[in-house]
Amino acid sequence: MHHDIDSLSALFSPRSIAIVGASATPSKIGGIPLDYLLRFGFQGPLYAVNPRGGLVQGLAAHASLDAIGAPVDLAIFAIPAALVPAALDDAIAAGVKSIVLFSSGFAEIGDQGAAEQARLAHKARAAGIRLIGPNCLGFMHLARNVYATFSPAPGVGRVQPGRIGLVSQSGAFGAYAYSMARERGIGLSLWATTGNEADVQVADCLAWLAQDPGTDVIMAYMEGCRDGPKLRAALALAQANHKPVVMVKVGTTALGAEAAASHTASLAGDDAVYDAIFRQYGVLRAHTLSEFFDLAASAAIAGTPRDRSIGLFTLSGGVGAMMADDASAAGLDVRPLSSEAQQTLRDWVPFAAPRNPVDITGQVTNDFTLMERSARVMLEDQNFASWMGFFAAAGASDKVWPVLHQLVTSLRAAYPDTVLAICTLLSPARRAEIEALGCLVFSDPSVGIRTIAALAGRGARPVSAPVRTLALPEPVRLPPGTLSEPMGLALLSGAGVPVVEHHLVQSADEAVLALTALGGEIALKIASADIPHKSDIGGVALGLRSAEQVQAAFARMQTSVRAAQPTARLDGVLAARMVRGGVECIAGVHRDPVFGPVLMFGLGGVHVEILRDVSLRALPVTRAEVQAMVLELKGLPLLQGARGRPAVDLESIADSLLALADFATAAGDTLQSAEINPLIARPAAEGGCVAVDALVIGHAAPAAASPVPPLSQPLQEAIA
Amino acid sequence: MHHDIDSLSALFSPRSIAIVGASATPSKIGGIPLDYLLRFGFQGPLYAVNPRGGLVQGLAAHASLDAIGAPVDLAIFAIPAALVPAALDDAIAAGVKSIVLFSSGFAEIGDQGAAEQARLAHKARAAGIRLIGPNCLGFMHLARNVYATFSPAPGVGRVQPGRIGLVSQSGAFGAYAYSMARERGIGLSLWATTGNEADVQVADCLAWLAQDPGTDVIMAYMEGCRDGPKLRAALALAQANHKPVVMVKVGTTALGAEAAASHTASLAGDDAVYDAIFRQYGVLRAHTLSEFFDLAASAAIAGTPRDRSIGLFTLSGGVGAMMADDASAAGLDVRPLSSEAQQTLRDWVPFAAPRNPVDITGQVTNDFTLMERSARVMLEDQNFASWMGFFAAAGASDKVWPVLHQLVTSLRAAYPDTVLAICTLLSPARRAEIEALGCLVFSDPSVGIRTIAALAGRGARPVSAPVRTLALPEPVRLPPGTLSEPMGLALLSGAGVPVVEHHLVQSADEAVLALTALGGEIALKIASADIPHKSDIGGVALGLRSAEQVQAAFARMQTSVRAAQPTARLDGVLAARMVRGGVECIAGVHRDPVFGPVLMFGLGGVHVEILRDVSLRALPVTRAEVQAMVLELKGLPLLQGARGRPAVDLESIADSLLALADFATAAGDTLQSAEINPLIARPAAEGGCVAVDALVIGHAAPAAASPVPPLSQPLQEAIA
Repeated sequence: MHHDIDSLSALFSPRSIAIVGASATPSKIGGIPLDYLLRFGFQGPLYAVNPRGGLVQGLAAHASLDAIGAPVDLAIFAIPAALVPAALDDAIAAGVKSIVLFSSGFAEIGDQGAAEQARLAHKARAAGIRLIGPNCLGFMHLARNVYATFSPAPGVGRVQPGRIGLVSQSGAFGAYAYSMARERGIGLSLWATTGNEADVQVADCLAWLAQDPGTDVIMAYMEGCRDGPKLRAALALAQANHKPVVMVKVGTTALGAEAAASHTASLAGDDAVYDAIFRQYGVLRAHTLSEFFDLAASAAIAGTPRDRSIGLFTLSGGVGAMMADDASAAGLDVRPLSSEAQQTLRDWVPFAAPRNPVDITGQVTNDFTLMERSARVMLEDQNFASWMGFFAAAGASDKVWPVLHQLVTSLRAAYPDTVLAICTLLSPARRAEIEALGCLVFSDPSVGIRTIAALAGRGARPVSAPVRTLALPEPVRLPPGTLSEPMGLALLSGAGVPVVEHHLVQSADEAVLALTALGGEIALKIASADIPHKSDIGGVALGLRSAEQVQAAFARMQTSVRAAQPTARLDGVLAARMVRGGVECIAGVHRDPVFGPVLMFGLGGVHVEILRDVSLRALPVTRAEVQAMVLELKGLPLLQGARGRPAVDLESIADSLLALADFATAAGDTLQSAEINPLIARPAAEGGCVAVDALVIGHAAPAAASPVPPLSQPLQEAIA
Repeated sequence: MHHDIDSLSALFSPRSIAIVGASATPSKIGGIPLDYLLRFGFQGPLYAVNPRGGLVQGLAAHASLDAIGAPVDLAIFAIPAALVPAALDDAIAAGVKSIVLFSSGFAEIGDQGAAEQARLAHKARAAGIRLIGPNCLGFMHLARNVYATFSPAPGVGRVQPGRIGLVSQSGAFGAYAYSMARERGIGLSLWATTGNEADVQVADCLAWLAQDPGTDVIMAYMEGCRDGPKLRAALALAQANHKPVVMVKVGTTALGAEAAASHTASLAGDDAVYDAIFRQYGVLRAHTLSEFFDLAASAAIAGTPRDRSIGLFTLSGGVGAMMADDASAAGLDVRPLSSEAQQTLRDWVPFAAPRNPVDITGQVTNDFTLMERSARVMLEDQNFASWMGFFAAAGASDKVWPVLHQLVTSLRAAYPDTVLAICTLLSPARRAEIEALGCLVFSDPSVGIRTIAALAGRGARPVSAPVRTLALPEPVRLPPGTLSEPMGLALLSGAGVPVVEHHLVQSADEAVLALTALGGEIALKIASADIPHKSDIGGVALGLRSAEQVQAAFARMQTSVRAAQPTARLDGVLAARMVRGGVECIAGVHRDPVFGPVLMFGLGGVHVEILRDVSLRALPVTRAEVQAMVLELKGLPLLQGARGRPAVDLESIADSLLALADFATAAGDTLQSAEINPLIARPAAEGGCVAVDALVIGHAAPAAASPVPPLSQPLQEAIA
C-alpha cells in the first residue's frame, strides 16, 4: 500500500511534466493540457516533446523524452495508439515515473486492443511506471495547478481548489460532474478519470485520496470493480481516516456461470453485493447527480452527525408536518423534548407546538429573539446530533437576515458537536457566508432531511469494531462440485452450525433403527449429490412415527427415485428427527467473482423467492454486522413474534451465521457456495435455530473470462 | 357547482375592492394590500374603509362599506377578530359579494373561536357572501393585479403572471412556495391560501382553477380535507378538463373510533386513502417542494406523455447506464429500437450502443449532425411518447449551443406529440429559450427521468371509463354493530360474492346432517357476533370427515366456548365445506370518515398484517380499477402461479371485489365495514375465488367530533 501511495504521488503531484505530442494549437488534444499548465501556472519544469521540433506554445520542443536530459515525474501521452509503444520505450529510457495515456484504441475496441493494452501495462509495471488510462480524460490536481487533461471543461470555467476529491471511471461523467461542481460553487482537490484502467483503478485513486492531507471528502463514480480486495482496502482506509466516501455505482457484473446453479447466488444480484460492501464500509451511496453533490458538499461543510437524533424547528406548522413525515420515513430519531422544555416554550408562545418538531409560529415576527431562544432550549434539553430549522423566506429579507446570521454563529459556537442546518431562501453570497460558518443551507426542507439522514449512516454500524477473529479449525479443502447432503451437514455442524439430529441409513431396517435412536417422529430424505430437488421425485417422506411407516416409506422412496433417476448415484437415505413449528429461514454463502464470499440471510419461502427480502454482507463480518443483517429484514416481525407467537432466538441465528462464515473462511477458494434451506428459527426454549437441509458446492476451476464487463465508451473529446 | 364557480369569480376576479381597516402605513396588515393594489395597478375602483376618515395612501377613507355607496365585489377585512361581526353586518348591508378574512382568533384558538367562526360563516352564507379565511394570508390573482394579501413576499419581489394556479391551506407554506416560484422563474395565475376554511376550501379553489381559462396546471397543498365529495368533484373536473393537479398532502386524519375495531380500517391508514383518491383522479402527488415545482413547471411546459414509452439518448455510456437504471426503476418502457434502426446507427458510429439508451459516443464532436440524425432515427422507429437526450455540458459551449437549439426546434416541429427533454447545463436565459419551445430542461438526468415518469401517470388508468352502473338490489339497511357471520355471508352472497357452501346448525345431530349434505370434509365454526377471534377459544374445528369426528368436535366446541365466554350470545355453529389449497386473500370495504366507503384487497396472513401489501380505491370503482388493484400488489406473483403452482382466477377476484363494492353501495351510510378474511383465490378449474369468513359491521351514529384535525398555526405575519 505504501509503495502504491508514493508512486501515485509522482503521478498526481509531479514536480516536472512533459507533454508527448505537444501541439502549438491550444484546442487540440496535444495543445489543451500545455495551454492549461502554462495559463493556470503549474509550478515546475514543463517540457514539450514533438519530433518536429521548433517552438510549441513558447516552449522549445524536444525530440523525445530521453532527449530532455532532466527528470520527468509525469509524461502526458497525447498521441495516437499506434505511437504509444515507442513512446513507452522512450519513457522507460528517460526514467519517467508516471504516464497519463489519453489515447483510445485499446481494450474498448476488442480483443486485439485488449492484448495490446495488457502488453503496455505489463511493460510499464516492470519498469516501475504508474499509468492512468488509456482511453481516459486524464486528471487535474487543482491545488497544485496540475492540468493533465484534454477536457475542455476547465477552459469554459475553472473549479476552485477545495477539499473534495472526485474520481470517475467514465471521462464523460467526470467532465459533467466537473461542470456541475463549478455551477454549484464546490471546490475540488483532485479530479481524476481512470478510463480503461490498465494500471490505476478507481480504487487506487480512492486509497490515495484517503491518505491525501488535502482531501476531506471523496466522490467516486464506478461502473465495475476489477479488484474487490483493493476496493475494500481503499474504503477501509477512508473509513479509518474518517473521510466520507460518496459513491455513484451503475451497471452490472455478470455472475460466474457456475454460480448461477446455486440458489443463493441467483438471489445475490451483483448490485446487492456492491450495496452490501458499501454498507459495510459506511459508503454514502448516491443515486442521482444531485444527491452526489448534496452529500459530498454537506459532508465537507458540516461533517457527519454522531447519531440519528434530530431536532426540527419551524415557523410553519405545514412545513413542520412535512419535515416530520420526511424524518420519520428516513428513519431519523425525532424524539420529543422533556415536559419541562415543552413548558418553557409554551410559556413563551401559548399556541406553539412544543414537542418536536417545535413550531414556534409566526409569533417570531413580534420577537425575533424567540428563534435562537427556542433553538437553545431544544439543544440544551436533548443534545440532538442534528438540528434543522425552517425559517421560511427570512434569508431573503434584509431585516431578518442579520438575526439569522447571528443565530447560526451563536449556535455553532455553543453546540460544536451538532450538525446544524437552516432551510430558507438565500442569495449565493449569503449562502456562502452561512456555509463558511459550518452550517448547512437548503431551500427544500425535504432535501435537507434526506441529506442529513444519509450522512448519519445506514444503521448503528460500529465503525471501530474489530473484525472477528476466531481460532478456526484446519483449513477445509472442498472437492469441486456438489457435496452429498450428509457431508454438507457434517461440515457445517463441524463449523458450529446447529444441525438437525440425523443418521445416514442404507436399508429399511437401518431406518427403523434410526427411528428408535432418534425417537418420536422422523423424516426420510434420499441422499444423493445428483438429485437437487428431492421432493419432486418422491425422495422425501415426512412425519414417520412407526416402524411400519418407516419401512413402507423407505421402500416407496427407493422405487420412485430409481424410476425417476435410474442413473443417479445414491449415498443412502438420511433419517432425521422431524422439526415442527418455527419460522423457515434461509442462510447461505456464495462466492462473488469480484468480492469473494458473501453471506446471505433471509426468511424462507415467498419472502426470499418472490419478495427478495434478504440481507447480504461480504466476509469477514463482525457479530454486530450479522445481528444487523437479521434486523434489517422487512419480515423481521415474523421472527420477533408477530400475532402472539413466541419470538425466536435471534442470538442463535447470529451464532449460526457466524459459524457459516467461519466455514466459508476455512474452505477459502475451494468453496463455491453453501446454503442452508431451511434454517428453522425457533424460540430459545425450543432449542433456537437448526439447519434441516444443506447444499454445499465446491468451486470448479475459475472460468478464463474476466468477470468484469467491458467499460462504456468514454467521450473521446468531451464537448465542454 | 356553477353557482359556486360564479360566486368564486366575484372573489378572485373582483371588479371593485374595499379594504376594511385600511392603513396609511404600507407595512401594516391594513396597509400592505392597499399598497400592492395601488403600486401594481389593479384596474377598478378601490375604496379605503376606516372610521377615522382622512386620506389613506391617497384615498379618502369611508366610514363603512355601506357608506361607499357603490358596488363592492370584494371586501378585505384587515381588522382584529373582535371587530369582524360588526364589519360583516356592514358588508351585508352594503351588498358586498365576497370577503377575505385575514384575522386570527377563531377556530385555531379553541372551541369558543370555532363557535364564533361557525356563526360568521352561517351569516355570510345566508347573505350569499363567499368568504375566504379566517386566519389566512389571502390571495393574489396575478393576471388581474388583484393583491388581496398581507404576505410581504410580493413586496420582496413579484412572481410573473403565468398559467399555473397555486392553492395552499397553510399561509406559511403558500408564502414560501410563492418565493420559490419567484426564484425558479415560474409564472402563476391565481395564488390563494384558505386558512381555517370557514367557507372556501382548497377543493373550491381547485374547482375554480379547473374551469379557469387562464390556468393550465394546478398546484395544491393540503393538510386535511373537510369535504371528501367536494374534493373528488373538483379533481374530476380538473381531470375532465385535462389540467394536471400536483398535490402536496401532509398530516393525518383520525379514523373514527368505531372503525378502529375493524381489521380493514386499521390497515387502511388515512394517508393510504388519500393516496388511493389521488391515484383514482390522476393527481400527481409530490413529496418534496422540489418535486412540487418540477412536476408543475414540466406539465405547464410540455404537457403529459401519452404513455410510458421513452427513448433515451446519450453521449456518455456512464450517464446512459444511470438513465437506464432510473427509467427501469421508475417503470418506464425503455423498449429497444428495431434491428434496422440499430443498424443505421451502427453504420454511422460502429462503436455506438444502438438499442435504447442510444449512446452515440463522443463521435458527435467530429460531426454535430449525428445528434439530430440519431434522435430522428429513434423517434421515427418507435414513436416514443417521451424522448430525453443527455448532451453533457454542450449547453454551456458557445460552439455547440446553436446546434442544440436547432435540434430542439426541429424535433419539436417534427414530433409534436412527444414530450421532449434535454439534459445539459444551461444559463437561465438559454434555459428559458428552450422551455419556450416546449422542451423540458434538466441538469440532473435522474430528476428528468423521475419527472417524466410521474407525469406519465401511475398506471394504465382509463381516464374516460364510465363509472360502473349496475341494477342494484333494493338498498340494504344494516343495524348498528357486528352482524352474525351467517348473516354477513348471506348478505355478501346475495350481492354476488361467491361464498363457501355452509349451513347453520344448532346441535351435533344437525352438524352430522350438514356433513351428509355437504359431503366430503367440513369445518365447524362457532357463530356469534360477540366472539371476533373464534379459533383462540376453541371455536373452530377443521377437516372433519366422519359423523364421529363431527359429533366430538361439536361437543368440545360447546364446552370450551362456554368456558371461555359464558355470556356470549351464540347463534349456533356454522358447518361449512372445507376449502383446501388456493391462496389466502383479504378483501374489505370500510367507511372512511372523509371519503366514505373504501375498497381494499390484499394477500392474507403476513402479507397484509406485516408487509401491509394492500391496495385501496374509494368507491365507486370501475372494473378496470379493480383489476389494477390486484395487479399492483407486490405479492402478485403468488397469484400468478409462482414456483410452478397454477395461476389463480384473477377475473373471479375482480368479480368478487365488484360484488363487494355493490354491497357497500346498497348498504350506503348504514355500513361501517365489511371484511372477507380469507377470500380463498383458486384456479378457474377449481371454481375461482370463494369467501370463507365474513365480518360485517353496521355503522353506529356518527361521533359528534369532527373527523378533521385542527389545522396548523399559519404564519400570522409572514417573514418575507
